[in-house]
Order: sequence, then structure tokens, then C-alpha cells
Amino acid sequence: MAAREGTFIAFEGGDGAGKSTQARRLAQAFQGVGREVVVTRQPGGTALGGSLRDLVLHGEAVTPRAEALIFAADKAQHVEEVILPSLEDGAVVITDRYTDSAIAYQGAGRDLGATEVTQLQDWAVDGLVPHLTVLVDIDPGEGRRRRGVVHDRMESEADGFHAAVRGHFLALAESAPDRYLVVDGTATPDEVARLVWERVTQEGLA
Amino acid sequence: MAAREGTFIAFEGGDGAGKSTQARRLAQAFQGVGREVVVTRQPGGTALGGSLRDLVLHGEAVTPRAEALIFAADKAQHVEEVILPSLEDGAVVITDRYTDSAIAYQGAGRDLGATEVTQLQDWAVDGLVPHLTVLVDIDPGEGRRRRGVVHDRMESEADGFHAAVRGHFLALAESAPDRYLVVDGTATPDEVARLVWERVTQEGLA
Repeated sequence: MAAREGTFIAFEGGDGAGKSTQARRLAQAFQGVGREVVVTRQPGGTALGGSLRDLVLHGEAVTPRAEALIFAADKAQHVEEVILPSLEDGAVVITDRYTDSAIAYQGAGRDLGATEVTQLQDWAVDGLVPHLTVLVDIDPGEGRRRRGVVHDRMESEADGFHAAVRGHFLALAESAPDRYLVVDGTATPDEVARLVWERVTQEGLA
Repeated sequence: MAAREGTFIAFEGGDGAGKSTQARRLAQAFQGVGREVVVTRQPGGTALGGSLRDLVLHGEAVTPRAEALIFAADKAQHVEEVILPSLEDGAVVITDRYTDSAIAYQGAGRDLGATEVTQLQDWAVDGLVPHLTVLVDIDPGEGRRRRGVVHDRMESEADGFHAAVRGHFLALAESAPDRYLVVDGTATPDEVARLVWERVTQEGLA
């Protein structure tokens, strides 16, 4: 479904992969060819989303199922309030994380199945799929090193979780290669930006 | 699914039907035969649920889809944090509103289909169905009169909405008569309480 007037691009990947940097770089490239661009992020891309995120991160106890529904509510609000109106205006919408992050992180958490989370996310966004999803792939240890996260006794457990998250991301990209680009997050920012723009122009999205 | 150790009873119906009164009366009846009873309500039966309700009622703009997901999150938290543990302890859990209210109100709102809302609610509560749902049926105008709501120019629109809500409730009850009791909310509280307890004992739930 969805308004096909604009161009919708999502960046996905683990923490420290460089998604935010690349979202900005891509926005500049689109602006360079005269396109209007909206850069946004999930979770927390709306006022409601910010309140929901605060509730989950700093608030009351939340079960895995309730958390999945709250993040889905953030998605629904984000799509209806920000993404769809911008696409209908013909803009380029670039989001730092979208449905894949929910599927990868919640699926890796093992409390809920990836299939269930996928169905929930699809409903939340009313089936809106990006024209292109860029997976900035990075080894979890490298991503942690870049963010300056101190190693501690939880390290090995966290490693297993983040390896599972990476596996989910890669599986999603493999399932639909025509609408994914997987780039190596350890390449230079210039090189990653070049590869992303190359694919965008190849697909006629610019 | 679900822990079948305890007894799970829901009261449903429009505002002003007398659900809260009957929930308390039924709790007293169960206590009279020596059962442990937990009386709760939705939305807002948990700390998280209270925060979510405040967010929807007094907070930021919320789209219908995001609102449905937020109320579903309240349900999920309520089931996992309050209802299931109490049932596992063998208690009677009596809830003032459950999934039917979400289906009836959101379905009547027409932004979302009742089927979609039903599927979402089922997932939120992980399929937990009450042993008995008591629908306290009342004409919307009578319910409003009881609550002392002043008539105004919005009256006819509100009437249409509340008539649709009542229709959804009655349709749900008709779809599964073996686990529903429909009582006339204009009967005396004593008479309603008598009918409810009669059905509870007939079903062997006491």
C-alpha cells in the first residue's frame, strides 16, 4: 500500500554501525539534486513516540508483549503523522530504523517469535514498505568498540544477543534483495555513502 | 490457552450500565463461599496501564491505529502482571471491561475493522478467554441519564456511536452464548446480582 508520490528509504543495523551519519549524508545528496528531504527516526519520531519511549526506558515494569505493542504504537503514529504526509507531498523520507529493527531486536530477545512481531509491525504501519532499506552491517564487537562501551561481565551474553540481532537483519535483507542494500559498516563513511547513492540512482529513486 | 487453576470473569457493557457495582457484588458473593477474589479493571489496571491511559486521554495527538496498539499494550501488561498470576494462585479474577470493550468501541469508531481489532486483542492477551463474560446491557440514552450527562448538540452523533457499541457487544454475546450472560441493566442491582450468581453456580464456577 501507500502514497507513492515520494521516496521512502530506511537505514537499519546494529548500534554503532553509522546509520545516523549515513542518513544525514544521503539527505545531503538528495538535497544536492533538489529534492525536499525529511530525516526522522524510530522509536521516538513523534511527540507521542517520545513519551512512549520514555515510559518503556525509564518508567514502569513492561512485559515483552506490552513492549512490542508500545513500539508498534510508536510506528503507527510515526507513519500516519510524519511519513505518509511527507510522502504525499512528494518528499524523500529517510528514517533511522524502521520495522526491521523491531523484528530483529524483539525476535532476538526470544520472548516473542519473529513471525508474530513481523505481523504486528506490518499492521502498525499498514503495510508501508520502504522503496529501499539500507542495512549497515557491522560486527557487534566492532559496533560496541566504536561507541566506547566498556566491557564487563555481561559481555558474552550481550554478544550472543547482538549476534542474533545481526542474524535477523541479514536474513531480512536476503529475503528481498531487490529492496535491500547491505553495506559493510567498517568501510569509510565516504565509501558507504558512495555505495548508497549509487544504488539509489540505479533504482531511479533520485 | 491459560492457567485454568482459578476463575476468570469479565463484565462488559456501555457506560452507566452498572458494571462496577456488579463486579463488587459478585466479588462479595465469591468471598461468601470462601474464594480469594481479585477485582481489577481495564484500561489502567496496572501502573504501566495507568500511564498509557493518561497519555491517550491527556497527552499528545494519537492516531486510531496507535491508540488501538496502546490499549492492546495495556491489556498485555494487565494479563501478564495481574490476571495470570492470580489465576495461577487459584483466585477468582473479576475484571471491569476486557477485550470486548476494545472491539466494541474501536470497531464502532469505524477507523479500524472489528476483525482487525479482535486479532490484535487476541494477540495482546495471548488468547486468554474468560470462563464467563457478563454483558450488562443498557440503552445508551438510559446509561447517559444515569450518569447525569447533560444533553447537547453532539447528542445525536454520540447516540449513533453508542448504539453501534451496544450492537457490537450484543453480537459478541450472540456469537458464543455458552460463555456469555446478557443481563438487563435496567433491572434492580439485586436482581442483576442474583442472575449473575445463578449462572456462576450453574456453570460450576463457584
